[in-house]
Amino acid sequence: MKNIMIINGPNLNLLGLREPEIYGSETMEDCMLRLRRTYTDYELEYFQSNHEGDIIDEIHRCAFPDAECAGIILNAGAYTHTSLAIADAIAAVNVPVIEVHISNVAAREAIRHTSLIAPVCRGVIAGFGLDSYRLGIEALLNL
Amino acid sequence: MKNIMIINGPNLNLLGLREPEIYGSETMEDCMLRLRRTYTDYELEYFQSNHEGDIIDEIHRCAFPDAECAGIILNAGAYTHTSLAIADAIAAVNVPVIEVHISNVAAREAIRHTSLIAPVCRGVIAGFGLDSYRLGIEALLNL
Amino acid sequence: MKNIMIINGPNLNLLGLREPEIYGSETMEDCMLRLRRTYTDYELEYFQSNHEGDIIDEIHRCAFPDAECAGIILNAGAYTHTSLAIADAIAAVNVPVIEVHISNVAAREAIRHTSLIAPVCRGVIAGFGLDSYRLGIEALLNL
Amino acid sequence: MKNIMIINGPNLNLLGLREPEIYGSETMEDCMLRLRRTYTDYELEYFQSNHEGDIIDEIHRCAFPDAECAGIILNAGAYTHTSLAIADAIAAVNVPVIEVHISNVAAREAIRHTSLIAPVCRGVIAGFGLDSYRLGIEALLNL
Amino acid sequence: MKNIMIINGPNLNLLGLREPEIYGSETMEDCMLRLRRTYTDYELEYFQSNHEGDIIDEIHRCAFPDAECAGIILNAGAYTHTSLAIADAIAAVNVPVIEVHISNVAAREAIRHTSLIAPVCRGVIAGFGLDSYRLGIEALLNL
Amino acid sequence: MKNIMIINGPNLNLLGLREPEIYGSETMEDCMLRLRRTYTDYELEYFQSNHEGDIIDEIHRCAFPDAECAGIILNAGAYTHTSLAIADAIAAVNVPVIEVHISNVAAREAIRHTSLIAPVCRGVIAGFGLDSYRLGIEALLNL
Amino acid sequence: MKNIMIINGPNLNLLGLREPEIYGSETMEDCMLRLRRTYTDYELEYFQSNHEGDIIDEIHRCAFPDAECAGIILNAGAYTHTSLAIADAIAAVNVPVIEVHISNVAAREAIRHTSLIAPVCRGVIAGFGLDSYRLGIEALLNL
Amino acid sequence: MKNIMIINGPNLNLLGLREPEIYGSETMEDCMLRLRRTYTDYELEYFQSNHEGDIIDEIHRCAFPDAECAGIILNAGAYTHTSLAIADAIAAVNVPVIEVHISNVAAREAIRHTSLIAPVCRGVIAGFGLDSYRLGIEALLNL
Amino acid sequence: MKNIMIINGPNLNLLGLREPEIYGSETMEDCMLRLRRTYTDYELEYFQSNHEGDIIDEIHRCAFPDAECAGIILNAGAYTHTSLAIADAIAAVNVPVIEVHISNVAAREAIRHTSLIAPVCRGVIAGFGLDSYRLGIEALLNL
Amino acid sequence: MKNIMIINGPNLNLLGLREPEIYGSETMEDCMLRLRRTYTDYELEYFQSNHEGDIIDEIHRCAFPDAECAGIILNAGAYTHTSLAIADAIAAVNVPVIEVHISNVAAREAIRHTSLIAPVCRGVIAGFGLDSYRLGIEALLNL
Amino acid sequence: MKNIMIINGPNLNLLGLREPEIYGSETMEDCMLRLRRTYTDYELEYFQSNHEGDIIDEIHRCAFPDAECAGIILNAGAYTHTSLAIADAIAAVNVPVIEVHISNVAAREAIRHTSLIAPVCRGVIAGFGLDSYRLGIEALLNL
Amino acid sequence: MKNIMIINGPNLNLLGLREPEIYGSETMEDCMLRLRRTYTDYELEYFQSNHEGDIIDEIHRCAFPDAECAGIILNAGAYTHTSLAIADAIAAVNVPVIEVHISNVAAREAIRHTSLIAPVCRGVIAGFGLDSYRLGIEALLNL
Repeated sequence: MKNIMIINGPNLNLLGLREPEIYGSETMEDCMLRLRRTYTDYELEYFQSNHEGDIIDEIHRCAFPDAECAGIILNAGAYTHTSLAIADAIAAVNVPVIEVHISNVAAREAIRHTSLIAPVCRGVIAGFGLDSYRLGIEALLNL
Repeated sequence: MKNIMIINGPNLNLLGLREPEIYGSETMEDCMLRLRRTYTDYELEYFQSNHEGDIIDEIHRCAFPDAECAGIILNAGAYTHTSLAIADAIAAVNVPVIEVHISNVAAREAIRHTSLIAPVCRGVIAGFGLDSYRLGIEALLNL
Repeated sequence: MKNIMIINGPNLNLLGLREPEIYGSETMEDCMLRLRRTYTDYELEYFQSNHEGDIIDEIHRCAFPDAECAGIILNAGAYTHTSLAIADAIAAVNVPVIEVHISNVAAREAIRHTSLIAPVCRGVIAGFGLDSYRLGIEALLNL
Repeated sequence: MKNIMIINGPNLNLLGLREPEIYGSETMEDCMLRLRRTYTDYELEYFQSNHEGDIIDEIHRCAFPDAECAGIILNAGAYTHTSLAIADAIAAVNVPVIEVHISNVAAREAIRHTSLIAPVCRGVIAGFGLDSYRLGIEALLNL
Repeated sequence: MKNIMIINGPNLNLLGLREPEIYGSETMEDCMLRLRRTYTDYELEYFQSNHEGDIIDEIHRCAFPDAECAGIILNAGAYTHTSLAIADAIAAVNVPVIEVHISNVAAREAIRHTSLIAPVCRGVIAGFGLDSYRLGIEALLNL
Repeated sequence: MKNIMIINGPNLNLLGLREPEIYGSETMEDCMLRLRRTYTDYELEYFQSNHEGDIIDEIHRCAFPDAECAGIILNAGAYTHTSLAIADAIAAVNVPVIEVHISNVAAREAIRHTSLIAPVCRGVIAGFGLDSYRLGIEALLNL
Repeated sequence: MKNIMIINGPNLNLLGLREPEIYGSETMEDCMLRLRRTYTDYELEYFQSNHEGDIIDEIHRCAFPDAECAGIILNAGAYTHTSLAIADAIAAVNVPVIEVHISNVAAREAIRHTSLIAPVCRGVIAGFGLDSYRLGIEALLNL
Repeated sequence: MKNIMIINGPNLNLLGLREPEIYGSETMEDCMLRLRRTYTDYELEYFQSNHEGDIIDEIHRCAFPDAECAGIILNAGAYTHTSLAIADAIAAVNVPVIEVHISNVAAREAIRHTSLIAPVCRGVIAGFGLDSYRLGIEALLNL
Repeated sequence: MKNIMIINGPNLNLLGLREPEIYGSETMEDCMLRLRRTYTDYELEYFQSNHEGDIIDEIHRCAFPDAECAGIILNAGAYTHTSLAIADAIAAVNVPVIEVHISNVAAREAIRHTSLIAPVCRGVIAGFGLDSYRLGIEALLNL
Repeated sequence: MKNIMIINGPNLNLLGLREPEIYGSETMEDCMLRLRRTYTDYELEYFQSNHEGDIIDEIHRCAFPDAECAGIILNAGAYTHTSLAIADAIAAVNVPVIEVHISNVAAREAIRHTSLIAPVCRGVIAGFGLDSYRLGIEALLNL
Repeated sequence: MKNIMIINGPNLNLLGLREPEIYGSETMEDCMLRLRRTYTDYELEYFQSNHEGDIIDEIHRCAFPDAECAGIILNAGAYTHTSLAIADAIAAVNVPVIEVHISNVAAREAIRHTSLIAPVCRGVIAGFGLDSYRLGIEALLNL
Repeated sequence: MKNIMIINGPNLNLLGLREPEIYGSETMEDCMLRLRRTYTDYELEYFQSNHEGDIIDEIHRCAFPDAECAGIILNAGAYTHTSLAIADAIAAVNVPVIEVHISNVAAREAIRHTSLIAPVCRGVIAGFGLDSYRLGIEALLNL
């Protein structure tokens, strides 16, 4: 059985805790539970870190043959806009990566309008709350 | 039965005809057929125009109560990057609009990195070929 | 009797319908009625279109001698900021054009701070709600 | 009887004297005389200074209850484009301020295309010669 | 007999009428007459519109086999500088397009120094009055 | 006994009067009273002007030996962002100057993110309401 | 007893060691000792890391109820200018954060003139050497 | 006997006092004395102010016929780079103005590389210490 | 018999030698031969240099009456984008100059999108290979 | 025996594995082996991390006397362009650092044209594949 | 007897010939004649070239001891704005250089507002016609 | 025996003479002598010019088969940052070119941070004094 890796970047460990009026009260654990029930043909793994380097390490790990990784759903949080190193990691591995965002980043501050990683991802999904993760998996399974 | 409107902007009438090595050989007609088979609970309407004004007119029309429009899947093509008027139309109506793109616009020329309409859409889906339309409907149904 | 042409650009057909808390509930029809009662020495014509090309066509039409057009009050909406073609139309005809806006565009997003058409208009009036149209006629009659 | 304050900024004391081929030969005194004859229900006061600080002081003074000021017609001249301090003064008082210009600033050098004070004014009128002051009063009386 | 399509964009219907001191008094009809006399081996078609969408439609039409179109001479007027959609239309068809301008756009305002469509045209000819159209045909016949 | 000069720039005479929901209802007089009670080893002088030139004059005056000025706490208001002349005055005198702001200027409009005078001040304190003045004195006494 | 957390970012572990002619020879340990003697009503904790992720983790930790953290004094060093992720962490927690700098960053290279984190902090104190930390605590206790 | 007006802007009252290692120890009084001895055919007047408005007033005064002013030597100090109002004053009067600077402004910070007033002056002289004033008079007498 | 001067700038001596897959294998000698056969009423001179100064010298020489130069076809190569001095030379002489390019410079790197010399030429022809020279002569003969 | 430290930044652990057609198939282990055979008078240490903080820590460690480090050869990968914190670390230690790159960064995307760390390094070597490391050591030994 | 070198850059050999309505009809020969009559204590040499390299060579030559050069009056023409190499030449020699311009460059196109060489010259004189050269010598003799 | 060409651009003829505290007192002759002793398998040629065109000519010459040139070590001096024409020359020849600089250009003024020629060179070496030339040869021999 192949794996799908969901990677969350900085501050996303606070999901469901911080600013519930914006992000809703659902935690990432609830979200993963729901996704695992829906996509039973795949092992859905979850990784979160506030460290840019950890995210790079994890992307590399997904590219090892024994990781049997069918693809990565990546919400890099603020690193989306500042980390060329994560972009290089994505470009270096031959695992498809799909960029997702909970909020509609185009409707926020200017610095969030530019993604350094989008050009090396397969595609981008933004603005649908936690449903963005499900849509990311949907997209991945139809590449 | 409620409607979902798929609106395509300039040059998308050539889909399946132009640059097949990039966009594939599937036409928008094939795509609509497949979508209608999948989403049988909704009437899926299709509108395409190369005219900015026609797209604005159509968005307005979707907001009339008798249009019974549940939402719009909008691929505004090049107007995505130049039409503040379409953005104003979206902001003016109370129908949810989801921006979709066939190609990964972030990986193309700089002028395509800025969307004037994304800030007033609910979310953005880009880079998944014609599957972007299906993902747009998926997103719409879960708003 | 000479004519004064009031031209409204994209989305202004929704006036009084959209976002009433911002734009008030008066429609353009009410506004025209009031203006016609005030300025009885002139035939006040009204034209609205969401199409950039239609607005250009109409500006050209006003320049024909038989149009007997004393001047144009133009609210080009979003095209104010994106249409060099409308600016060229204004520069090409010898009918005075006055740019008006309902809202105070200088207090909105940055893209609305630059008007492509203002340099070729006689003057600009912005921020006085529907009264901007009356002020435009006042200005025109005193050129 | 309430007051309306007309404030003129730097170099406008030379009106009718400098560059008559551009600004006409009418002086501000002539203009005030005409306005006072037209708007007899209000006391029309006039203030001119080449000093940024004087203009701020005067705007403050208009906000005192005993000033009984119904509104300010402000032509800040070159300070329009360089004085954030005058903008702050306008934002601080609860007297409506209307920005006016004799010339069509949008048709002049680039530095005159940005007004620091427009965002905190109720609206802007530019390009109608000395008639811009009358239009400003018209606008004020209809706010 | 193959066709050559001459397409003129916004405001070019006023040629010979507007600003004769700049553009001369020759109309586009005179110009076409002269060109047809010169290039008798080709059918020279003429199309003008003030509508961006019409120009896109017409470019598409030229690409249909039955159009037998040997190439397009395109003076997109102001759309040259604002229409990414026309650029996409040119890129999508396999008919050679040559951009022409009557005036020397490089000697005019900054906004006219950038052509969005030039990168997808075969070449550019600007500054030679109505003779630019003849030079465009000359260039086309030697591609 | 040495003096400490508190200088306030444009519109700060309205403190406690304008926008109390933002700036609180304490006036600068209250603030000075409190500071004088706290820092009894120094003569605390207060100067406010809406005139850029007055502020320069006052800074010069502080540098005269008989001013016995231990330092200046300067809230230049909007002049912070537009007055190179005040910056030159600070650079010219050998009295330490500390820039203070009531609001957190970094959280306001972009024009307030750049201080022309900060590079020639000893340091900057911003965002702590009227307590910023006390912190400025604290900082000054520990230079 | 409540806690106050002092967080130092990259390279600040070298304080007192590197470039003593600029930063003085006092170490952060000396500084903390002095602060703890002054503010005996609070537990003063100290955390330093060269890792962006560690700083985010620590800010999160301060927001846990059991951390009983009254506020954070944050000198993010170079991350001040490059880390949107730290800014997001500050925005996500409901603990007041005060940005401090040892040097007057406005007087250094341009890249140090923009703080990504200042807009989400309560205020900023910069330029007073190690005394900036004491002033930060002073500010915190008076919020 | 005609007059030549030397106008000095902000902080130039400190000449000879501030930063003598840069500006030398000669005061403006010494300089004027020397100039008056050299140019005995003209009345050399001197005016200095730290107030932008005063400088504008003075420039206006020079244009009155009874001022018999042959020209102005203007060192506007920091206002050179920020005062569009002084530029307008120069443009409005028909007295020749020559911009002078003591230091070589092109070799200082970027903000000093742009002069708002130079375009409306006859010419610019910069970098020759107090000798710039003499060169300004030399230039004026040869216009 | 009048002369037409063809001037080629830097690296164009390598035409037909360098990058034949881009520029074709025809040399400039072949091109001149063909042109001379076509335009027998004029003396066609050819000048090439890699030196900016030589090109200026040559343009000057063409303006001497005894040069009897009807016009210049100028391909300034890379100097097109960096040489204000060549632009000044063109502006200084009263010989018409037509800018030509072999490649479509608008489709190359950004630095090649701006021509310093185009504003002072009569017109521009770019993108037609060596045929651009012939088109340049055609244009010249119809000015 | 003194040490030379080779530090590699993010994604360089994949060397020889990723994109072999670009980077060749030699791994960093091969490279180190070859370098150690060549430079036998020095202990060549190797450190790689995907973590910005780790690289800072390591640079600090090299500055400890017991590290006996003669210099650092630093390929900071993508952090070259985004890490002001690494630049600060280099500036803080008194060990010479030489920046190296495998590819010719000037020939890649614009974001890679600016190095934040180069200004505080002794010099830069880029574009010579793995030989850049050898050249870095050569340069270091001749400082 | 010491020498003063007057160096003129590109197109200045046409002085008195080109655009006499702008530059007057006096040639540089007339100008030199007049200057030599005025400054009889110095040998006034004149050098003009359209070649950037020649100007550099000449500046170098002036620095040789046997050149006995007291200073250089340099009108670099268009190279003022494009030649960093001439700036480097000036910085490298220990002969004072004074930048002069005939026209008021600040009143011309934007590209002429920035001088690459001014920062390394002693000062700048611009806008006084051929009298700028005399003023340059005056300035030089008083350095 | 093959040749290696060392080309030096403007002002580098002054090496060892100008600013010895920066560049050292070694001349280029000393440097060449040392290099020729080291690399005895190659003929090391040296060429210096202050003329952009000469450098282009020389690069062309190196590409002739009879030049038997193994590669070029190019220090283009200030032309590095302003000469697109030299870049084109490098791109046109099939001889490897290595860009070298004596100083660390990244640590100097902003204009020196961009190299127009680096993208078409094989690699760049900067900051190692005259040793940069030796490193360039080392790099060349290992391409």
